[in-house]
Amino acid sequence: MSRLRYAVSMSADGFVAGPEQSREHPLGLRGELLHQWMRELALWRAEAGLTGGVVNASTEVLAREDDNVGALIMGRNMFGGGPGPWQEPAWDGWWGDNPPFHLPVLVLTHHGRPPLECKGGTRFEFLTGGPAVTLDRARAKAGESDVVICGGAGTARQYLEAGLIDELVIHLVPVFLGAGTRLFDSAALAAIRMQQLKVVEAPGVTHLTYRISR
Amino acid sequence: MSRLRYAVSMSADGFVAGPEQSREHPLGLRGELLHQWMRELALWRAEAGLTGGVVNASTEVLAREDDNVGALIMGRNMFGGGPGPWQEPAWDGWWGDNPPFHLPVLVLTHHGRPPLECKGGTRFEFLTGGPAVTLDRARAKAGESDVVICGGAGTARQYLEAGLIDELVIHLVPVFLGAGTRLFDSAALAAIRMQQLKVVEAPGVTHLTYRISR
Repeated sequence: MSRLRYAVSMSADGFVAGPEQSREHPLGLRGELLHQWMRELALWRAEAGLTGGVVNASTEVLAREDDNVGALIMGRNMFGGGPGPWQEPAWDGWWGDNPPFHLPVLVLTHHGRPPLECKGGTRFEFLTGGPAVTLDRARAKAGESDVVICGGAGTARQYLEAGLIDELVIHLVPVFLGAGTRLFDSAALAAIRMQQLKVVEAPGVTHLTYRISR
Repeated sequence: MSRLRYAVSMSADGFVAGPEQSREHPLGLRGELLHQWMRELALWRAEAGLTGGVVNASTEVLAREDDNVGALIMGRNMFGGGPGPWQEPAWDGWWGDNPPFHLPVLVLTHHGRPPLECKGGTRFEFLTGGPAVTLDRARAKAGESDVVICGGAGTARQYLEAGLIDELVIHLVPVFLGAGTRLFDSAALAAIRMQQLKVVEAPGVTHLTYRISR
């Protein structure tokens, strides 16, 4: 059956983004340190149209992330357009007319609007029924493939608190951000069980895979 | 040269103790989950006078913790006796007249008092000069052996913020506590550098070793 997966880079002090997030600094101040392990990989660089880079234990971890994905879930903040009802004309995302997803993208929002069909196979659908309903719809779209939460932290936290994430991968980066957005910052998590499935040590990062359940 | 070491069990959400710490629950509510990996070990059980237990990848990690230790540093809260000036007669610790340390123990405090000599080689010395002065004294006592911070979190955080910990071991436990005491909860940590030295995957825990510096 289709699994729900979420992977995120986290600082040693638990932050998935630094303070003062903005258009210019989408991961906050010093937040780019969280992705340094990834930007050094030849695999990542090739996908970004860059040359060079290394192959190490992180390569397979990153390759698995892109594998067998049938649909994506993202929060309204990540889709963009600001909070509250959609303006006219409605915001069409940050990604131009050919978004990099090439998959059905289910946007978890309080404000409905018609689906947005883009070039390259990306189709945004806006769901107002909450996390479980959105996941059901994503699973229907994904078929036998997995559903991946692409962010942000608030959206991922809703699925964590509901115990719905089958595979959580924390890319634990040896850096302190000191402030910012925590993923695990909720008393409700005390009711959630986790099971350690796999640990991969790599240069400048440790990849920890957990199963989450209620 | 003598190194400063600190090892602590931490929940996935960053807590080194649960909420509502008390004499009855020294690690707070559900805090005993943080030490479950340790209590299952034959090595730990033998030291506690118990039989049974397992040998696994955690065994060597725990054995190393007790190895080559020449002096301990602890905070005033861990030594006990409540905050503020010492009462008369002064509190002599939780540990009876034969404390389990068998080493020089340097207590970091704002309130001086004469050293306390106990059976079995434990000698408490009370230092009021701050973390660096206390560390110098501990190193003098330890000789070629290492100095270990035995707690609590507030004391360890002072040494972290000063960039003085040569070896930090986080025993990362796949459990959410939801609330409690965080070790890494300080904006000052943004100035501290860490280097990932070693990762050991074990049943129910991942042991992460870092070097800390300014």
